[in-house]
Amino acid sequence: MEDRFLLSNLLDYYGNLLTDKQKYIMNVYFNDDLSLSEISELTNTSRQAVYDIIKRCTKLLKDYDNILKLLEKDNELKFVKTTILEKIDTLQSALDGRTIIENIEDIKKYIIESL
Amino acid sequence: MEDRFLLSNLLDYYGNLLTDKQKYIMNVYFNDDLSLSEISELTNTSRQAVYDIIKRCTKLLKDYDNILKLLEKDNELKFVKTTILEKIDTLQSALDGRTIIENIEDIKKYIIESL
Repeated sequence: MEDRFLLSNLLDYYGNLLTDKQKYIMNVYFNDDLSLSEISELTNTSRQAVYDIIKRCTKLLKDYDNILKLLEKDNELKFVKTTILEKIDTLQSALDGRTIIENIEDIKKYIIESL
Repeated sequence: MEDRFLLSNLLDYYGNLLTDKQKYIMNVYFNDDLSLSEISELTNTSRQAVYDIIKRCTKLLKDYDNILKLLEKDNELKFVKTTILEKIDTLQSALDGRTIIENIEDIKKYIIESL
């Protein structure tokens, strides 16, 4: 149906906004790779109802992400983290040179502007 | 009714999850300090309906924050930013000493563990 990796991620971020039953069904479908029939048996719900819940909740999770953009913000934060660490590596390897103060100022500027 | 500062903050984070009308009413009530009667006139809605919308949406915004905790996460991030900058200040003032490599390692460790 949908890209499992994306949906699994969206569930991590927004799953708690679903009801317990919706969250359970989305979880076993996208993370545990259960079939509609298996989920139907497990939850005592018709196969069609399971399908409808998955479809509706997939849209719901995507709508939440379109509004709140938590995945994108988290990716930006990971990029910032990597960039700061790279800047500190540069600083570390410049320890015996003259550029060290410039490097420190550069790191501070980057943190102030991006975090 | 409710703490204006908190609600104004919650609106910044979760306001887009409300409908346009709900968001407008919450905004003029909590940010522009309009009275229920003024909002009632502006929106062509009864005073009681305005009151109900504010009450319902206040609960909604708080529910979203209880689940997603974006305010808390943002405050943590501000704390991390301040802490990194303080560590770099320490590093900067240790430039002529011997503790500089230790300081750099300490900053890296802090970023890896907390960001």
